Amino acid sequence: MKYTDKGAEGVRIAYVGGGSRGWAWGLMSDLVSCPDMSGEVRLYDIDKEAARRNEVIGNLFNGAEGARSHWDFRAADTLGEALSGADFVVISILPATFDEMESDVHTPEKYGIYQSVGDTSGPGGIIRALRLIPMIEVIAEGIREYCPEAWVINYTNPMTMTVRTLYRVFPDIKAFGCCHEVFGTQKLLASVLEDMCGIEGVKREEVKVNVIGVNHFTWLTSAQYKNIDLMPVYSEFVDKYYESGYTKGMDDNWMNNTFACSHRVKFDLFKRYGLIAAAGDRHLAEFVEGKWYLSSREAVREWGFGLTPVSWRKENLKERLEKSERRLKGEDIVIAETGEDGVSQMRALLGLDTLVTNVNLPNMGQIPNLPIGAVVETNACFSSNSVTPVLAGEIPMNIYPLISRIVASQELVVKAAGERDLDTVFVAFANDPLVDLPLDDARSLFDEMVENTKAYLGEYFK
Amino acid sequence: MKYTDKGAEGVRIAYVGGGSRGWAWGLMSDLVSCPDMSGEVRLYDIDKEAARRNEVIGNLFNGAEGARSHWDFRAADTLGEALSGADFVVISILPATFDEMESDVHTPEKYGIYQSVGDTSGPGGIIRALRLIPMIEVIAEGIREYCPEAWVINYTNPMTMTVRTLYRVFPDIKAFGCCHEVFGTQKLLASVLEDMCGIEGVKREEVKVNVIGVNHFTWLTSAQYKNIDLMPVYSEFVDKYYESGYTKGMDDNWMNNTFACSHRVKFDLFKRYGLIAAAGDRHLAEFVEGKWYLSSREAVREWGFGLTPVSWRKENLKERLEKSERRLKGEDIVIAETGEDGVSQMRALLGLDTLVTNVNLPNMGQIPNLPIGAVVETNACFSSNSVTPVLAGEIPMNIYPLISRIVASQELVVKAAGERDLDTVFVAFANDPLVDLPLDDARSLFDEMVENTKAYLGEYFK
Amino acid sequence: MKYTDKGAEGVRIAYVGGGSRGWAWGLMSDLVSCPDMSGEVRLYDIDKEAARRNEVIGNLFNGAEGARSHWDFRAADTLGEALSGADFVVISILPATFDEMESDVHTPEKYGIYQSVGDTSGPGGIIRALRLIPMIEVIAEGIREYCPEAWVINYTNPMTMTVRTLYRVFPDIKAFGCCHEVFGTQKLLASVLEDMCGIEGVKREEVKVNVIGVNHFTWLTSAQYKNIDLMPVYSEFVDKYYESGYTKGMDDNWMNNTFACSHRVKFDLFKRYGLIAAAGDRHLAEFVEGKWYLSSREAVREWGFGLTPVSWRKENLKERLEKSERRLKGEDIVIAETGEDGVSQMRALLGLDTLVTNVNLPNMGQIPNLPIGAVVETNACFSSNSVTPVLAGEIPMNIYPLISRIVASQELVVKAAGERDLDTVFVAFANDPLVDLPLDDARSLFDEMVENTKAYLGEYFK
Amino acid sequence: MKYTDKGAEGVRIAYVGGGSRGWAWGLMSDLVSCPDMSGEVRLYDIDKEAARRNEVIGNLFNGAEGARSHWDFRAADTLGEALSGADFVVISILPATFDEMESDVHTPEKYGIYQSVGDTSGPGGIIRALRLIPMIEVIAEGIREYCPEAWVINYTNPMTMTVRTLYRVFPDIKAFGCCHEVFGTQKLLASVLEDMCGIEGVKREEVKVNVIGVNHFTWLTSAQYKNIDLMPVYSEFVDKYYESGYTKGMDDNWMNNTFACSHRVKFDLFKRYGLIAAAGDRHLAEFVEGKWYLSSREAVREWGFGLTPVSWRKENLKERLEKSERRLKGEDIVIAETGEDGVSQMRALLGLDTLVTNVNLPNMGQIPNLPIGAVVETNACFSSNSVTPVLAGEIPMNIYPLISRIVASQELVVKAAGERDLDTVFVAFANDPLVDLPLDDARSLFDEMVENTKAYLGEYFK
Repeated sequence: MKYTDKGAEGVRIAYVGGGSRGWAWGLMSDLVSCPDMSGEVRLYDIDKEAARRNEVIGNLFNGAEGARSHWDFRAADTLGEALSGADFVVISILPATFDEMESDVHTPEKYGIYQSVGDTSGPGGIIRALRLIPMIEVIAEGIREYCPEAWVINYTNPMTMTVRTLYRVFPDIKAFGCCHEVFGTQKLLASVLEDMCGIEGVKREEVKVNVIGVNHFTWLTSAQYKNIDLMPVYSEFVDKYYESGYTKGMDDNWMNNTFACSHRVKFDLFKRYGLIAAAGDRHLAEFVEGKWYLSSREAVREWGFGLTPVSWRKENLKERLEKSERRLKGEDIVIAETGEDGVSQMRALLGLDTLVTNVNLPNMGQIPNLPIGAVVETNACFSSNSVTPVLAGEIPMNIYPLISRIVASQELVVKAAGERDLDTVFVAFANDPLVDLPLDDARSLFDEMVENTKAYLGEYFK
Repeated sequence: MKYTDKGAEGVRIAYVGGGSRGWAWGLMSDLVSCPDMSGEVRLYDIDKEAARRNEVIGNLFNGAEGARSHWDFRAADTLGEALSGADFVVISILPATFDEMESDVHTPEKYGIYQSVGDTSGPGGIIRALRLIPMIEVIAEGIREYCPEAWVINYTNPMTMTVRTLYRVFPDIKAFGCCHEVFGTQKLLASVLEDMCGIEGVKREEVKVNVIGVNHFTWLTSAQYKNIDLMPVYSEFVDKYYESGYTKGMDDNWMNNTFACSHRVKFDLFKRYGLIAAAGDRHLAEFVEGKWYLSSREAVREWGFGLTPVSWRKENLKERLEKSERRLKGEDIVIAETGEDGVSQMRALLGLDTLVTNVNLPNMGQIPNLPIGAVVETNACFSSNSVTPVLAGEIPMNIYPLISRIVASQELVVKAAGERDLDTVFVAFANDPLVDLPLDDARSLFDEMVENTKAYLGEYFK
Repeated sequence: MKYTDKGAEGVRIAYVGGGSRGWAWGLMSDLVSCPDMSGEVRLYDIDKEAARRNEVIGNLFNGAEGARSHWDFRAADTLGEALSGADFVVISILPATFDEMESDVHTPEKYGIYQSVGDTSGPGGIIRALRLIPMIEVIAEGIREYCPEAWVINYTNPMTMTVRTLYRVFPDIKAFGCCHEVFGTQKLLASVLEDMCGIEGVKREEVKVNVIGVNHFTWLTSAQYKNIDLMPVYSEFVDKYYESGYTKGMDDNWMNNTFACSHRVKFDLFKRYGLIAAAGDRHLAEFVEGKWYLSSREAVREWGFGLTPVSWRKENLKERLEKSERRLKGEDIVIAETGEDGVSQMRALLGLDTLVTNVNLPNMGQIPNLPIGAVVETNACFSSNSVTPVLAGEIPMNIYPLISRIVASQELVVKAAGERDLDTVFVAFANDPLVDLPLDDARSLFDEMVENTKAYLGEYFK
Repeated sequence: MKYTDKGAEGVRIAYVGGGSRGWAWGLMSDLVSCPDMSGEVRLYDIDKEAARRNEVIGNLFNGAEGARSHWDFRAADTLGEALSGADFVVISILPATFDEMESDVHTPEKYGIYQSVGDTSGPGGIIRALRLIPMIEVIAEGIREYCPEAWVINYTNPMTMTVRTLYRVFPDIKAFGCCHEVFGTQKLLASVLEDMCGIEGVKREEVKVNVIGVNHFTWLTSAQYKNIDLMPVYSEFVDKYYESGYTKGMDDNWMNNTFACSHRVKFDLFKRYGLIAAAGDRHLAEFVEGKWYLSSREAVREWGFGLTPVSWRKENLKERLEKSERRLKGEDIVIAETGEDGVSQMRALLGLDTLVTNVNLPNMGQIPNLPIGAVVETNACFSSNSVTPVLAGEIPMNIYPLISRIVASQELVVKAAGERDLDTVFVAFANDPLVDLPLDDARSLFDEMVENTKAYLGEYFK
C-alpha cells in the first residue's frame, strides 16, 4: 500500500464469505464509489463458484457509472491466500445453510416460541452460534498466521459472539463488528424532528446519540440534534404514535425492506424505561420476555412488525441468484449507496478521515458496569490505525436487568462453545428470555435443535 | 461501657421494634446466656404497650435458669431516648400491620401471581419496601444524631433495601444486616455429610462456605468440610433426593417451623446451575420466573414447599400474644439458643472474639461484578469495632442474569422510593420475575396494591 | 440562540478573566474568524477597567480584515451578569498578581529548588492552587446558579486542580480543560516526519496520538501518521538529536516563544521509558525528581530549556499593556490564527462539526488504573452538547510511578484546600518530586511561601 | 491424609529450601508443638547435605520436651520427589550465596546508596529478584506438575515478586506469602497500650489492625484494642518518643535480634502521613527517598536503626552451622515458639480452626486502587481449603504515591525478568527511590551489579 495524492493505493481487502449476494455487492458498490482508495479484494468462500462469480461481478463494477476508483476483484482458493498480507479482512458468512436456519427459527414454534429473526439471541441465535464459533476460530487462527496486523470488520451474526470469539482465539486481533441497526434509529429520529418540530432534511449522522448495550439490543441514553434534546421530543412522538405505530420513512435497506416495522415495540420499551431502544423491532423483541411481543403470530401483527420466515429467505435467495445471473452478464451493475459505514471506517483507519460511529468491541471499560472483555456496542473513534471506544457510561439501572442477563448468557455460550461443552450452553439456553419453558421441555427443544443441525456440529461430538 | 475481667460491662443496646414477640425474645435469651457481656437494652416501639410488656419479660429473663449475665431492659418513650449513646442498635420492625402484608402477599393472586413469603422481592416485597423506606430514613437520621458511632444490626425485611437505605441517608453509618437463611443451608450440608458420607455431628459452623448474592437469594460457590469438597457430594445427594425431596433435619427455627421445605427448589436450581442456592425454598422461589416454582398452589405443593398465608401469621400472632401474657406472669421464661449470630457479632465487635460469618453490606468490591454500593450478602470478618467483607469473588456467569436483575431492581426501588417517585418504582415492579404480566395489568396490580396500603404511603402523595 | 443557514446565531459566551491581554485577544480573533457562529461575549474581570478596555478592543475585531462573523463584546459588572444564560463559559484567570507568582517561583530557589514555570506542579503550583481554589469555588457556584447547562472551558493553571474543583463544587457541571501542549508535540512529530522521512507539510491534526496522563505531564502511547507508526521513527530521531537537541520548527505561540526548548528533556524521558512525553520541556521537568533536569541554572541550560523568571512575565505584561493601548486606538487589530481548539470545540458542541481532541476531564474510566474522579488528560469526542472521553487505556507500568504520584498529590491538595486544611496540603507539598528536602526544611519553605502570599489566603486562616 | 479424633494425620509437607538453618528449624519446633496435626516433611535443597542434616535434626525434634505430635522428616533427592502429593509446600530459599548478596547490598554504596537489608526493594532487591525469578519459575512448574492442589506458603524474599511469579507461571496455584513484620508492629502497639494507657499483657493478636500495602511496606489504616482506637494514642506516643526513639519490647525474633530499631523511622512516617507504617524500620527506610533515612551511616545511626552488613550474615551463618553441628548430636533441640503463623495457617486450611491474619496475595480488589493481579499484603481469612482476602480498602491518597510507585516497579520487574529483558528491568531500577542517580550512573551501577552476580544470571544472556 502506498499513499499518493489520490489517497491510498494498493489497499488489500480479504473478504471471507466473498460469494455473498448481498453484503459483498454492497461493498463493491461502496468501494468503487470511494475516490481516494483503490486496490484489490480477494474473495474467499467455501462456495468457490460463488466467489468466482463475484470476481466477475466485482470487476464489472469498476466500469459502472459513477465509479471513481479501481479495484481488482479476485477469487481466492484458500483462506490463507485471501488473508496473506491483507490490510483489511471482512467477515460475512452464513453458518451452514438456510435449512439449518429453518430449524433455528421454526423448531421452537412447536413450543410456542416465535422468533422474528432468530440469528442473534433466543434459541435460534444460540444454536446458530454453536455452528458458527468453530468456523470463526479457524478464521481467527488464519488472521493470526497470515495478517496479524490487519483490521478485521465483522458483519456475521450473532455479532457479539463472533467478535468475542475472534478475541478469545487471538487476543491481539484488531477486530470490530459493524451493524446498521442504530443508523435506522437515527433515521427514525430524523423523522421525529420532521414530524414534531418541522425540521426537514436532517441526515442520520447529524443526530448525535450515545449508544450503549449489545448488538441488536442497543439503547440510546441521549439523542441530540444541534441544541435540541430529542428525549422529550421522542417522548411526545411516542405518545402520538403509540397505538398506530409510525410507518413513514421506513428503512429500505435490502436486508430489511420486506419486513418493515412500525416501531411499536420501540415505543413500548420507551414507555417502560424512558430510553430509546435502537434497533429494528424484530430484533428488540427477541431480547425480552417472549410473551411481551412474541407470544403469537397475532400478537406480532398487533405490535406491527413481522416474523421473517426462513421460507422468505429461501425465496429471496432465489431472486438474488437470478440477480447474480443478470449481473454476470453485465446487467444491473448499478452503484447505489448502501449507507453502511464499512468503507468510511477503512478510510479513517488509513488516516484519510476521522470518524465517530457505533461498533462492537470488547468492553475495556466503555460500559463500566458490564464485564470486562464482553463484547458491547458503543460509539468509537476511528483514526489512523486505531479504533478507540468512547466512554459510553453505565447501563442505567432500569434496563440493566435486561442487558446484563443477555451479556452473561452470551459470555457463557462463547466460553462453553469454545470448550465444546453443550451442557453449559444449555444453561444459557434455558435462561433465555424467549425460552419460557419447564426445564425438561427446554432440554427437549435444545436436543432437537442440536439434532437437526448436527451435520454442522461435529466438533461437539468428538 | 468498660472492660473488666468479666468482659464488657455497661453495654448499651437500643432495640428499635422492641415490642416484638419473636426476635426480641430470642435476643433476650441470647443476651442473658452470654457470660462476658452485660448492660442495658432500651426497647423502642411505636406500640409502646408492647415495649413495656417486653421490658417486664426481658427483666424476668435475668432470673431464668442458665442466665449468666444481667441486662436491664427498659422501654424507651422516644426513638431518641432509645438511641442516645447506644453502642448497638438492633432494627427489627414490621412496616405497618399484617393487613397491609395481606395485600402485599395475596392481591397479586388475582393475577395468578403466588408468593411464598412476600416480604423481600416480588410485588409484595416492593410494596412493603415503599412503606418501610420512609421509616428507615427516620431511624437512620436518629442514629446520625444520637449515636453515630453505634453498630447497627438490621433484621428487618426487605433486608437489602433496608440496609441500602440506612447507608443512603447516613453514609458513615456502621450498619449491616443479619439473616439466618445461609445457616439453614449449612445445616442441610451437615445432613448431606451424614447421609452421604456417614459423618455425624458436624456443626453448621464447621461447614465452610463462600457466600455470594443478595439476601434470601444467596448462593454458595464453594462448600468444604475439612478436606471434603462438598460440591460433588451435594451433586449426588441432589440426584438421590431430587424427586422425593429431603425432609430430615428440617429447620425448626420459630420463623420457619410451620412451613418447612423439602429443598426441591434448591435441588432444581443446582441441576440448572451447578451451584448451591443457600436460602429456604420459599425465599428462593420468589427470585426466579414465577412459572418455575410458583405457577399455582398445586405446583408449589409438588415442589415441596409452602406458601405462607398471612392468615397464618395473624393466627400465629395471637399465639404469640398469648405467650406474651404467660411470660408476663413469669411462665415460659426459658432460655433457648436461637442459633442467631447477633450476640456473637456484638462480642466480636467489642473485641471479645473474632468471627467470620455472612452479612449484608454495601458492595465495596467484595463482589466485583455487581454495582458498587448495592447491598450484597457475603462473608465478613468481625473484630474489634470492625466488620470487613471478604472478597467473595465474581458472580459466576450462569447465575449472573438471575442475580444482576434483582440487584438492579432493588437499586432502582431504593432510589425511587427515596425520591418518592412511584413511576420509577413501577419500572422495577414490572421488571420483576414474578410479575409476568402485560404492562397494563402490571400497572393495575401496582395501583391496587398501593391503594390498599395507602394509609402508610402518605409520603408518596404529598 | 438559534440556528440559521449561517450556523448558530446569538451564542452567549461568558469570559471570566475577561480583562486578559493574552488568551482573551486570541479568542476574539478566533471568534470573528469563525463564519458559522455569532453572538455576544460578556467580559468579567475583577479588574473592571481591563474588562472595559477589552470590550472596546473586542468590538474593534469585528472590523478587522478577515473577520467573518460579528460578536458583541460587553464588559459585565458582576459574575452573575456575565454568567446569566450563558451557553459557554471561558475561565482564564490569574490567581493574585505576578508578585505572588514571584514568591511561588523564586522562594524555593533558596533551597536549591528551581522551577521552570511554577504554575502547575511543584511548590509553586501547589501554593498557587491554594489561592486559586477558593476563587474557582465561587465561579462554580455562580455557574450552578446562573447557567447550569452551560459548557465551561477552563484555561487556568493549575489546570487539573481547577477542573477538579469545578466538579467538586458542582458535580453536574459540564466543564473541561483545554491545553495546547500536546499540539506542540504533534507539531514536533510533524517535524520528525520531515526530518526522518522527508514528508513535508503534515498538519499537527494529521498526527494521530493516544494521549494519557495529567495536564502538562501527558504522554503518547501511540503516534501514527497514515500508515506510519511514529514510535520507531521518533526513537531514531531521539538518537540523532539527543545530544544537540532539536530546535527547528519551534513553537511560536505567544505563551512560549520567548522560552523555547530543544526537547532534550523529552528525548531523555523517551530514552528512559520508551514513550513520548507530550508537553514542553519546561513543564515536563517539573514533574520528575528535581535533580534530573532542574538541579541548577547550569543544568537547565545544558538540558536546553529555559527557566521563565517572573521578572520576564512582569516585563512582558508591560509590553502587553502597551499593546492594549495601541489596540484601544484601533492599531494592531489583526486576526491571527491561535491554533487553539476553543472555538472548534464550541462549534462541535453546537452540532456544527465533530471533533476529537485532547482535554482534561474527570476520570470515568478513560484511564482505568488511575482513581475515578481525578482529572486526567486524554482524547475526547466533541459533538452536539456532548464531550465524551475515549478509552485511553491504562498507564503503562514504567511511567505509572511518575504519574500516579502526581495524581495522588493533586487529589490530596484539592480535597485539603477545599477543606482549608493546610497541614494536609503540606503532606502533598513534602511528597512533591521537586521538594527534595528534609521535613523541617520543607515545612519552613511551605510556611514562608504561605506567608508571602497570605493576602490571598485569608480563607485558610478564618 | 485422614482426620481422626487427634486431628489431621498423614499431612505431607514439602519444604523447598529444606536445608535452611533458620526458618526450617523454627517450623520443626512449631510442627511438633502442634497437637492436632502429624505427618511427614520432605526436605528439598540444592545443598543436599544440608537437607540430610536437617532430616536428622527434624526427627530429633520429635523427642524434644514439649513435643506433642510426631513428624517424619525426610530429605528428598529431587524437587519432584519432595512435591509429589504434598498437601503443603513451604518455599524458603536463598537465591545464590551471601557473596551475591554482598554485591546486592554493598556495591551501591560506591554511589552513596546505603541499604539496610537489601533483599526486598532498592537496587539489591531488584538484582536479587533477577536471580530468584527463574528459580521460582521452576518451583511453580513443579507444583503444577506434582501437587497442583497443594497450598503453597512462601517465605522467600523479595516476597512480592516471588508470589507474583508463582501466579504468573501457574495461575491456578494456591499460594500466599507470609511475613512477621506486621506482628512486630502489633507488639509495638501492645507496648503503646502499656506505656500510654497502663494496660499490660495485651497479646499482639488482640490488637486488631487493617493492613494495607506491599510486603515490608505495609501500613495500618486502623488499629483497635477492644474499644480503644489506637490511632490517637499512637499519635501521642510518637510525640513522646519521636526524638529518643522507643527501644523497650524490642523484637527478639532470630532474624532481627542483632539489629533492633528504635522505631524513629516509623514515627517520622507517622508524622508525615498520619498512618502507622507496619514493618521494621530497616525495611521501611528502603521504600522511600534514600536521603530521608539512608543518606549515610551517620544518618542511619541517628534514625536509630541498623544497616545489616552481609559480613554479619556470613558470621551469623557460621554460628548457625555450629549450632547445626550441635543439634546433629542431639544437643540444643529445644522447642521454642517462633510466633510465626505458618502452622496456624495450615491448621486453618485443614479445617481445624479459623484464622484471620495478614498475608501476601494477588490483588483481586482487596485494595481497589492498586492494579489487579499485583501482589499486595492485607488481612485474609483462612478456613478449610480457603484463603480469602478481606476488603482492605483503598490506599489513602497521602501514601498512595509511595506505594503505587513500588507496586508499579515490582510489576515491571516481574514481567521483564519473566521475559529475561534486562533493559526493562533497568527502567524500574532507575525509577527506584533509593537510586537517586543520573541515568548514566544508574546504568553503570546496574551493569556492575549484574556482572558481579552473573554466575546466577545465565538465563538472561542466552
